[in-house]
Amino acid sequence: MGNKINVAIVGYGNVGKGVLSALKQNADITASAIFSRSPERVKKEGLSLPVYSIDAIEKLKGIDVAILCGGSKDDLPAQGPQFAALINTVDSFDNHSKIPEYFAQMDSVAKKSSKVAVISAGWDPGTFSLERVMGTVVIPNAKMYGFYGLSPKGGLSMGHSDALRTINGVKDARQYTHAIGEAIEKIRNGENPTFTARDMHWRECFVVLEEGADKEKVTQEIVSMPGYFEPYRTVVNFVTEEELKAQYAGFPHDGLVIGAGVLGGGEKALVEYRNTWESNPVATGHILVAHARAAYRLAEERKTGAFTILDIPPAYLTNKSREELLRSFV
Amino acid sequence: MGNKINVAIVGYGNVGKGVLSALKQNADITASAIFSRSPERVKKEGLSLPVYSIDAIEKLKGIDVAILCGGSKDDLPAQGPQFAALINTVDSFDNHSKIPEYFAQMDSVAKKSSKVAVISAGWDPGTFSLERVMGTVVIPNAKMYGFYGLSPKGGLSMGHSDALRTINGVKDARQYTHAIGEAIEKIRNGENPTFTARDMHWRECFVVLEEGADKEKVTQEIVSMPGYFEPYRTVVNFVTEEELKAQYAGFPHDGLVIGAGVLGGGEKALVEYRNTWESNPVATGHILVAHARAAYRLAEERKTGAFTILDIPPAYLTNKSREELLRSFV
Repeated sequence: MGNKINVAIVGYGNVGKGVLSALKQNADITASAIFSRSPERVKKEGLSLPVYSIDAIEKLKGIDVAILCGGSKDDLPAQGPQFAALINTVDSFDNHSKIPEYFAQMDSVAKKSSKVAVISAGWDPGTFSLERVMGTVVIPNAKMYGFYGLSPKGGLSMGHSDALRTINGVKDARQYTHAIGEAIEKIRNGENPTFTARDMHWRECFVVLEEGADKEKVTQEIVSMPGYFEPYRTVVNFVTEEELKAQYAGFPHDGLVIGAGVLGGGEKALVEYRNTWESNPVATGHILVAHARAAYRLAEERKTGAFTILDIPPAYLTNKSREELLRSFV
Repeated sequence: MGNKINVAIVGYGNVGKGVLSALKQNADITASAIFSRSPERVKKEGLSLPVYSIDAIEKLKGIDVAILCGGSKDDLPAQGPQFAALINTVDSFDNHSKIPEYFAQMDSVAKKSSKVAVISAGWDPGTFSLERVMGTVVIPNAKMYGFYGLSPKGGLSMGHSDALRTINGVKDARQYTHAIGEAIEKIRNGENPTFTARDMHWRECFVVLEEGADKEKVTQEIVSMPGYFEPYRTVVNFVTEEELKAQYAGFPHDGLVIGAGVLGGGEKALVEYRNTWESNPVATGHILVAHARAAYRLAEERKTGAFTILDIPPAYLTNKSREELLRSFV
């Protein structure tokens, strides 16, 4: 199989591990290297892949696509343009309010370097973006809504878990987001409601306290944290370290894109897309790998610049042949 | 608005009417003519559009895209290639087993005429095709299933209603398809089951008898009809003509694309896409109109040949600007 697409994994956290895991199910793509800010730490994991410093750009030679697995807050704003100046890239940039700016920057860099930069290729943004657009394609006047944590346990939010851990007296914590079912029913009923954040989700925290910390004080600090918890109904549960590890491990998440409206003659219409992941970062890894395939194909066509999932023919994401797609998928 | 996309509606049955209706919500596209095999019949509807015979090909001048609204059995196999030799086309060809053949034929004709032919652009095939592929993009080992008629009343099947009307003694009839919920639950549980047709759906018939017709005989003929009813559990209800018109009017339909599997590290994963239409042909009309927009844009890029939804960047289907897409949809 000399014709495999060669990718590099840039950043070996949860998402980077998810990418490596996803490659087991994508036989046409192989990873040839990992790039990390802490190569010595990654080397200790005993992987069979070479691990390089993120600055070892000479090691990108022969690699088709760099899959950027860093975070959107601190890593990608710098790494995205750095890598797009050198190589085709894919990332899951998910800071929604900054996507236009990031797209413009990546587009400009990748056009100059004659490379392809696929951005925001996770599930939200990513496959959910596709569903939001497709919802309004089939129901032009639908308002599209996103819900997270519909499963009984809810969806683990890394960002909110991290926020909890910044609080004095909190030793460890995990936050599960829950969708509010009544809000979803209102949409299904065609009400096209206007919601506040609090109408759509509530938040559940499992907190391990430092010894001697004050439950009341910590609870107050959590529920009043602006942006993260203050706008929501928030339930705080205190658990032992053992309980947290045993019952609240892993990265489960799930979500729903939903929209309803009326068609041209006044006929009611509704679309819903739901995904459920036992592991959020592995799911993101799978989606990144599929977009690395698309990036490679776009580059083969001499396309350049930034792309989102909306700019890519869906067939580019799969390794199924046109014949198989026409026979079994269309 | 001299810059609107000009479409012709070819065939003015339920889907053709749905296209005209959909244009009310797609301000960038306008219909300039209807082509019909029975122009005199269509003229009686008092539309403000010119109505031409389907053979009046000189009237296609100035039209950007012909939206072919005929049936897949008798109309499209002939009309598709005829029109694709002259003009950009969009259709909702839905004879699944013949899609590879129809694609090849339309591709060949449209490449020769330097036109774009978008085929199979309804909801199944169409948006469901997209979801089937996206399901296996995010969960490579998922088996994708389709269910129809999940809503309590079920989904109206035109083909099965027509089949009922061919039976001696049947004056009128409508057939509602029902999904079997237990089958869907098995998929959600990750069992990736192998189903027979009977495991997934059952069929409910509402039949108006001719005077003097024999209920038992008609029932036997229905439930033993090969392909249409024989493989399914079929319930036959006899109703009066008035009941049929009052309670079983319109074209409601709905469906589900669903697939589950495990990701690269063994993590469970599930995707589901559901749509619910008060009017199936109007929904198809909306999807055809969106693909007419895409056909126009592909033609502007000097693309030629046949395309399915899998070959089209999703952004081509919407009239929202790139700026709006990046800001509010990605």
